[in-house]
Amino acid sequence: MIKAGIIGSTGYAGAELVRLLLGHRETEIVWYGSRSYVDQRYASVYQNMFQIVDASCMDDNMEELAKQADVIFTATPQGFCASMINEGILSRAKVIDLSADFRIKDVRIYEEWYKLEHKSPQYLAEAVYGLCELNREKIKSARLVANPGCYPTCSTLSVYPLLAEGLIDPATIIIDAKSGTSGAGRGAKVDNLFCEVNENIKAYGVASHRHTPEIEEQLGYAAGEPVVLNFTPHLVPMQRGILITAYASLKKEVTYEEVKAVYDKYYDKERFVRVLEKDVCPQTKWVEGSNYVDVNFKIDPRTKRVIMMGAMDNLVKGAAGQAVQNMNLLFGLEESLGLQQAPMFP
Amino acid sequence: MIKAGIIGSTGYAGAELVRLLLGHRETEIVWYGSRSYVDQRYASVYQNMFQIVDASCMDDNMEELAKQADVIFTATPQGFCASMINEGILSRAKVIDLSADFRIKDVRIYEEWYKLEHKSPQYLAEAVYGLCELNREKIKSARLVANPGCYPTCSTLSVYPLLAEGLIDPATIIIDAKSGTSGAGRGAKVDNLFCEVNENIKAYGVASHRHTPEIEEQLGYAAGEPVVLNFTPHLVPMQRGILITAYASLKKEVTYEEVKAVYDKYYDKERFVRVLEKDVCPQTKWVEGSNYVDVNFKIDPRTKRVIMMGAMDNLVKGAAGQAVQNMNLLFGLEESLGLQQAPMFP
Amino acid sequence: MIKAGIIGSTGYAGAELVRLLLGHRETEIVWYGSRSYVDQRYASVYQNMFQIVDASCMDDNMEELAKQADVIFTATPQGFCASMINEGILSRAKVIDLSADFRIKDVRIYEEWYKLEHKSPQYLAEAVYGLCELNREKIKSARLVANPGCYPTCSTLSVYPLLAEGLIDPATIIIDAKSGTSGAGRGAKVDNLFCEVNENIKAYGVASHRHTPEIEEQLGYAAGEPVVLNFTPHLVPMQRGILITAYASLKKEVTYEEVKAVYDKYYDKERFVRVLEKDVCPQTKWVEGSNYVDVNFKIDPRTKRVIMMGAMDNLVKGAAGQAVQNMNLLFGLEESLGLQQAPMFP
Amino acid sequence: MIKAGIIGSTGYAGAELVRLLLGHRETEIVWYGSRSYVDQRYASVYQNMFQIVDASCMDDNMEELAKQADVIFTATPQGFCASMINEGILSRAKVIDLSADFRIKDVRIYEEWYKLEHKSPQYLAEAVYGLCELNREKIKSARLVANPGCYPTCSTLSVYPLLAEGLIDPATIIIDAKSGTSGAGRGAKVDNLFCEVNENIKAYGVASHRHTPEIEEQLGYAAGEPVVLNFTPHLVPMQRGILITAYASLKKEVTYEEVKAVYDKYYDKERFVRVLEKDVCPQTKWVEGSNYVDVNFKIDPRTKRVIMMGAMDNLVKGAAGQAVQNMNLLFGLEESLGLQQAPMFP
Repeated sequence: MIKAGIIGSTGYAGAELVRLLLGHRETEIVWYGSRSYVDQRYASVYQNMFQIVDASCMDDNMEELAKQADVIFTATPQGFCASMINEGILSRAKVIDLSADFRIKDVRIYEEWYKLEHKSPQYLAEAVYGLCELNREKIKSARLVANPGCYPTCSTLSVYPLLAEGLIDPATIIIDAKSGTSGAGRGAKVDNLFCEVNENIKAYGVASHRHTPEIEEQLGYAAGEPVVLNFTPHLVPMQRGILITAYASLKKEVTYEEVKAVYDKYYDKERFVRVLEKDVCPQTKWVEGSNYVDVNFKIDPRTKRVIMMGAMDNLVKGAAGQAVQNMNLLFGLEESLGLQQAPMFP
Repeated sequence: MIKAGIIGSTGYAGAELVRLLLGHRETEIVWYGSRSYVDQRYASVYQNMFQIVDASCMDDNMEELAKQADVIFTATPQGFCASMINEGILSRAKVIDLSADFRIKDVRIYEEWYKLEHKSPQYLAEAVYGLCELNREKIKSARLVANPGCYPTCSTLSVYPLLAEGLIDPATIIIDAKSGTSGAGRGAKVDNLFCEVNENIKAYGVASHRHTPEIEEQLGYAAGEPVVLNFTPHLVPMQRGILITAYASLKKEVTYEEVKAVYDKYYDKERFVRVLEKDVCPQTKWVEGSNYVDVNFKIDPRTKRVIMMGAMDNLVKGAAGQAVQNMNLLFGLEESLGLQQAPMFP
Repeated sequence: MIKAGIIGSTGYAGAELVRLLLGHRETEIVWYGSRSYVDQRYASVYQNMFQIVDASCMDDNMEELAKQADVIFTATPQGFCASMINEGILSRAKVIDLSADFRIKDVRIYEEWYKLEHKSPQYLAEAVYGLCELNREKIKSARLVANPGCYPTCSTLSVYPLLAEGLIDPATIIIDAKSGTSGAGRGAKVDNLFCEVNENIKAYGVASHRHTPEIEEQLGYAAGEPVVLNFTPHLVPMQRGILITAYASLKKEVTYEEVKAVYDKYYDKERFVRVLEKDVCPQTKWVEGSNYVDVNFKIDPRTKRVIMMGAMDNLVKGAAGQAVQNMNLLFGLEESLGLQQAPMFP
Repeated sequence: MIKAGIIGSTGYAGAELVRLLLGHRETEIVWYGSRSYVDQRYASVYQNMFQIVDASCMDDNMEELAKQADVIFTATPQGFCASMINEGILSRAKVIDLSADFRIKDVRIYEEWYKLEHKSPQYLAEAVYGLCELNREKIKSARLVANPGCYPTCSTLSVYPLLAEGLIDPATIIIDAKSGTSGAGRGAKVDNLFCEVNENIKAYGVASHRHTPEIEEQLGYAAGEPVVLNFTPHLVPMQRGILITAYASLKKEVTYEEVKAVYDKYYDKERFVRVLEKDVCPQTKWVEGSNYVDVNFKIDPRTKRVIMMGAMDNLVKGAAGQAVQNMNLLFGLEESLGLQQAPMFP
C-alpha cells in the first residue's frame, strides 16, 4: 500500500483527491492536511465522507508528513510548496504539487505572472511537468512532479498534435476557455455566491490570466519555437468542467482525414484522451467525474482556420485525477488504476 | 461473471445501470436494450460511453434475452414487465423490475392508481419488494424482484423505524418530497426543458401521485395496520437527488437519545443508510452519485411532532444502485460490490 | 415626488428596492445607504445600474436621512431599526422596516427567537404589520410599517382564508417551505457558494426558524386563538422564489367549490393575489420579478386534509415589492403603482 | 394606441414581446397568434399571464391580421414571413420580422445557409435591417423591418466601431459566442432538457452557424469590404443571456484611451449601449431582462490583438426588445418607450 498525504485536503481539488484515493486499491491516505480545519473531523467539513473517513484534519507540516508518507500531494496556494520543499522531504517521499510552483521552467516568468518570489528555484530543472500523455517516461523516475493547471491540460492536449506536426501557424493561436465554478475554489467570496454565478457568464483575467505562460511553454515545445497566444477564460454557471475552443490558421490545405490521422497518431493508444468522431463536439457533461479529455476539431475552408475543441472535468483530469495518474506512474502501477470510472450522466 | 441484460438501457435509470455495472467486477453486460435506438451504437446515444461501450442497442425481446443472461433488468414503463414475464423467462434468468409492476401486492390498488390492467397478477405473491435493508433475506432466494420506487425508498427508510417501534401515530404522517429532474425521465417534453425547470419549483401529483400506495403499503407493514398518508412531490431545478421531509405526531414524550437509539437499532449495521449526527440535516449533494441514504430527525416539543428527513440519489439508491444491490443479494455476492463509490462533491 | 431613502441598499432586498423605485414614477431615491460601501459608486457595487444610478453610497445615519426623505426603508439586519428609531425620525418621515424588529407584537417572543434585546419596544404597539391584503386600512395611517418576512407573507396569504372561515383545524397546520438562495443574502459564506447550493436541496432551521412565531401570530389572528405549527424551510438551487406547501386537517367535509369560494371571498378583488384555476399548482417561475402571489389548494378526501400552496418572488412580494406597495398605501397612491410588471418568463 | 399583432406569440421570443408590449403604454395587443395553441387561452400556455391576458390564441392568418393591426410582429420559423408577405399586407400594416427572412440582402447567401427557397426576394431591397443604433433613420420610414438575430446584434455592436475606424484587420476576426438556452426555443427536444443542458457547455454549429453570413454582411459595411470570419456559438446552462468574445489583430499600436474614444464616438449618446469602464468585463447577469448591450475591450500588447466583449439579454435586445425599439422608431415614439426597465439582479 502506498501511504499518501494530502496538504490542502479541504479545498475542492484536495477533496477530489480524497474521493479518488479512497477508490484506489493500492493507496491509503495517512494525512488529511488542512490548515483551516486542524483537529476538526474531515467528515464534518465534507459531509459526503461521513462514515467513510474517520480521520481529523492535520496541519501542513510537510517535514513530518514526509516521514509518514510515500507520496505527498500539495493542493495548496501558489508559493506554499516552493517554500517548504527541501532535500530532506524529497529524499523520503515523492511530491506531486498541484500548484503552479514548478510548472514553469523560467523563474522570471513565474515571478512576473504570479507576483511572487520563488523560494526554491533550484528544483525547477528537476521538476517534471506531469502531463502524463506527453511526459510519461520522465515522470516515472521523477521525485517532484508539477501537476499541470486545469486550463493548460485541456488546452495543450487539444492543440499539441497539430502544432507538433506543423499543420498550424503558432502565431495565430487563440484559446477561448470556459470553466465551471469549482475552479475558483471554496473560498467565501461574493463573486462565487450562487446568486452571482447562476444565470451568468463572463470573461475574466482577459489577456492576463496566469495559465497563459504555462500553455505557451508547453505549446512552445510542440512548435519548436516560442509561442505567444491569446488565452481568455470564462466563468460558466456549472460546478465542474472545462471546455476550450481554440483557433489557428492552417499552414496548408488539409483534409479531415489528414487532421484526424494526426490526432490519432498522438492519442490512439491513450486511455484518457478520446478523439471524437467527425462532427461530434466535446461537451463537458460527457466527461464529468472521469479522467477523460474529449477532443475534436473542425476545419473551416472559408477562413482557412481549424477550430480545436477539448472538454474535461477540471477537478479530475484537470487536477486530482491527473495527480493520481502521475502517482501511478511514479510507483510503477497501471496508469489508470483508480481512474477507471465511466463519466456520470446526467 | 454474471451476464446481465438491460431492457430500457437508454433511459436515465437504464444508463445509470450501465455506468454501475461497468464498474462491477463480477458482471458483464450482454444486452443493451432500447426500443427507440435499436441498432444504433449505445455510445452514440450516451456519448459518455464512447470508447467504453462498443455495443449497439438491441430490441426488447425478453424471451431471447433470458436465454443469454443470468439477470434481466427492466428499466421500462409501467406495464412492460408484467406483460412479458412468464415461467420460461423466470426459469432461466433472475428478473429485477425497476417499474412499479410488482411492487404493490394488491392488484386492485395497482390498477386503480396506474390506470392499467395488470397482465401477470399471478406473480405478485412471489415477487419480493427489493428494499434491501428491510427484505434482505427474502430477496436472496427470489426469482423476481420488484425494485422500489425512488420516493418510496427514501420515504420508507426515513419513517420506518419510528413507526415500527410505535413512537409515531400512523394517522398523522405527512411526507413532503423534493426530487431532481432526472426522475422525470429523458422524454422530450416541454415541461422538462431547461428553461421551464431552471429557476423554478412546483408541486405536482398533489394527493394523487402513484408512489403513494407503495409508501403506504410499506409503512403499513411497519405499523402493523393500514396507513393512509399525504405524499406531495415537488420538482427541483437539479439533476439528481431526492429529499423527503416527513412529519408525524409523537405518541409520547421522547428524548433525542431515545429516537436516535431507534434509528441506530435499524441502521447501525447498514452500509448504505447513514444516520447523521445531531442537528445535521441531510442534503442531496452529500450523497450524489452514491448508494447512500442519509437520514436524520428533529423533535419539536412545541408541536409534539417529529420531523424525519432523508436524502439520496434518485438514480442510484432510488433506482439503479438499489437494483445492483438486489443483484448482489440474488447472486450471493457482497452486498456492496460495485457500489462502494464515495459521493462526488461538488 | 416622494423622496425615498434606503438604508441597506446593497443587500439583495435593498437592491431590489432600488430597481423597483427607479421604475416608480412618483418616487425619487435620495439616499443609497450602505455601511459596507460608503462613498463607493452604487453602480460599481451593482453593475446593472451603470449609467442608471450615478449616486455613491451613504452611511446609515437615519437621523440625517429623516431630514431629507419622506420615506425611509430599512433593509437592514435585525436590531438596526429598533436601535435607531425615535420620535424625531418618525415625526419627519414614514419608516418601512424590512427587518423583523416590529413584526411581532410580544417583545418577549421577539427576544426569545431572535436572541436580541429589543431597543424600542415602545413602538411595537404603534407599528402596523404591512401585509397589505390584510391590513390595508391600518397601513394607510401608519408612521411605522413592519414589512412582513418572505416566508410569513407567502404562508399567511395561503392559509389565512381557510383558517379565518373555520374550515381547518389550527392545531394541525404544517408548512413546508422552499426558498431560492437570494433569501440568504449577499454575505460571503461558504454555504452560499455556487458549488455548495447548486445541485442540492436541504432543510434548515428545522423546528427553530425565526419566521415561525411571525406566521403563528398572523394565523392566530385568523383563527381567533393562538396557533402553534410546524414550519420547515428548505434551500433550493435557484435565485428567487418561495413556494410553500401547507397541510391542515379539514374540520368538515367540503367540496372544491366551497373552498374555492372562500379563497375568492378574500382575494377576488386583490390585484396581487391570484387564485389559480382548479388543479393548477403554483410555480415560482410564473411570478418571477413580479409582486404576485399565486395560491391554490387541493382537497385530499383520503386523509381529510387540504393541501394549500403559494408561490411568490421572495425579493418582490416577499420584500421590496411589498415595501413599495406599503409606501403607495402610506402616501395615498394607487396601490399597484410601480408594481405592474408582468412576471418574466423564462 | 398602436394595435399590435404577434404571429408566434407562444415561442420564447413571442412571449417576451407580449411581456414588453403589456408594459408599453402606447400599444395594445390585438392578436396573440400561435398555430400550435389556436383557441387555447394564452394564459393557459403562459401561466405568468394569468389574470393579465384574457385573450385566446389565434391562427397565423397574416392577411386578416393586417386588417386589424397597425404593426405585425412575426416571431416565426425561417421562411414563414417570406411566404406570406405581400403588397396588401404591407400597405395596411408595418411588419417587423423576427426571423432571418429579410436580414441578408443577397438571396443566394440566404438560400445557401438556410437551405430554403426565398419566397419573396422582391422585398429584400426594401427591407431595413433593424439594428437601431446603426440604421435609425432608415428604420423610421420603413414598411418592413428585418429584426436582427441575437448573435449578430451582440457581435456587430461589439466589433463595429473598431472596424469602421480602421483599427482592426477584418481578415483576423474571430467571434466566440456563448448563449443561454432560451435561444434554442421552446420545442420539446431531448437536447434542451434540463438534465442535458444543466452542468454542461458545448460548442455547436461550428464553422456553419447560420448567423455567420448575417454578421459578415453587417461587419462588411463597417469595413467597406467583404468580411469573412469565424463564428462559434456555445450553449451555456442558463436561460437568458448572450456573451460574445471577439478577437482581432490591431492594425497599429493604440492606447486604451484611443480605443475607448472610438467606442464613445459611436455609443456615447446611445441609451442602450453601455461602454463599460476600464477593465470591467461585461456579464450577462448585469443586463438580464433589459434592452442594454454592455460592451468593453482589452488590448493585448503581447499579441497585438484586441479582445472585444459584449453582453446582452438574447430575448430582449436580441429579439423582442429590439423589435419594440424598432416599433417605436416606425411610429415616431420615443425610442426607449416601454424599454426603460433596469436590469434585474439577481
